[in-house]
Amino acid sequence: MYEGALADLIDELGRLPGIGPKSAQRIAFFILSSDPADVTRLSAALTRVKDQVRFCTICFNVSEQEHCKICRDTRRTDELICVVEEPKDVVAVERTREFRGKYHVLGGAINPLDGIGPDDLRIRELMARLSSGLTREIILATDPNTEGEATATYLALMLKPMGLSVTRLASGLPVGGDLEYADEVTLGRAFEGRRVLDV
Amino acid sequence: MYEGALADLIDELGRLPGIGPKSAQRIAFFILSSDPADVTRLSAALTRVKDQVRFCTICFNVSEQEHCKICRDTRRTDELICVVEEPKDVVAVERTREFRGKYHVLGGAINPLDGIGPDDLRIRELMARLSSGLTREIILATDPNTEGEATATYLALMLKPMGLSVTRLASGLPVGGDLEYADEVTLGRAFEGRRVLDV
Repeated sequence: MYEGALADLIDELGRLPGIGPKSAQRIAFFILSSDPADVTRLSAALTRVKDQVRFCTICFNVSEQEHCKICRDTRRTDELICVVEEPKDVVAVERTREFRGKYHVLGGAINPLDGIGPDDLRIRELMARLSSGLTREIILATDPNTEGEATATYLALMLKPMGLSVTRLASGLPVGGDLEYADEVTLGRAFEGRRVLDV
Repeated sequence: MYEGALADLIDELGRLPGIGPKSAQRIAFFILSSDPADVTRLSAALTRVKDQVRFCTICFNVSEQEHCKICRDTRRTDELICVVEEPKDVVAVERTREFRGKYHVLGGAINPLDGIGPDDLRIRELMARLSSGLTREIILATDPNTEGEATATYLALMLKPMGLSVTRLASGLPVGGDLEYADEVTLGRAFEGRRVLDV
């Protein structure tokens, strides 16, 4: 229905995740009526991210240098490694301000339906990191869904013979949530993981 | 939480309409793992739309030439002008394949709360077009909401002394809808506009 540059832009925007044809059209008209300097900034930010952002060669988090900010931080201990699926999970854990160790980003989770096996994740690189002997505990923080659980179980079996402590984040009721709205698996896990109250 | 180019991109994407912080992050990671050629194409499409897309000097629809495809189409009659608020409304009317006249895009609707008065719309340009004497009917196809109705009423009063037919799109029940879910204003309009069935 549109032609030329406007049609191309609507097409390109429609390829982005979560952007349907209506949103693509809305954004294209927004761009059309935006300040040219704003559009240039957005356009430059897109190409710059591809040119400058790399993966940390230690933990595979996003980084603009060979080693990411967290791996370079000497105040953080090498004794703890938190294993996550994606760089955005690092951000989620960092937001808690509870963790002072290092990370390892797998780049996904085991998912046979999508053809993602252990060899497609950065598991070999995790094993190589452990040879330093500094690591005392591995915290498996993959997603609490089927793929994340399968990945955590696989890693736990691989890590068991190495004699270090392997832990998994607790499953249970979300804080601030309502018991009646919790699904039965979550509520079951919350029962299983119940703790003695020190009063 | 992010740094450098990735943080900039998330910021810029977050300024687009309908894109919240979570979507911006999701799109930024999608860009990061996309083929560089795809990203270059998106980035170029953004700047190209600003460079190439103009407004038709006759009807103010979007166009890459001085006169848009519809105004240049000699098979379309100059006797009918359909007045709409935005270029995307032209696309909506074109999709019906019912209309073979020309358009006039106002660039919005009268909205005193947002400070948009008749002088901010392309009403003067519409009046100038009518001086050719070719126009027989003006179809007011502004949105069926408060602002669109006010704009249609304003235009109808302006156009009345010019002796041409001024019509407004019918309001009524949407085809395929359920009578019980129609709001009372729409249902009232449907009663008002009821027609004799020829059987």
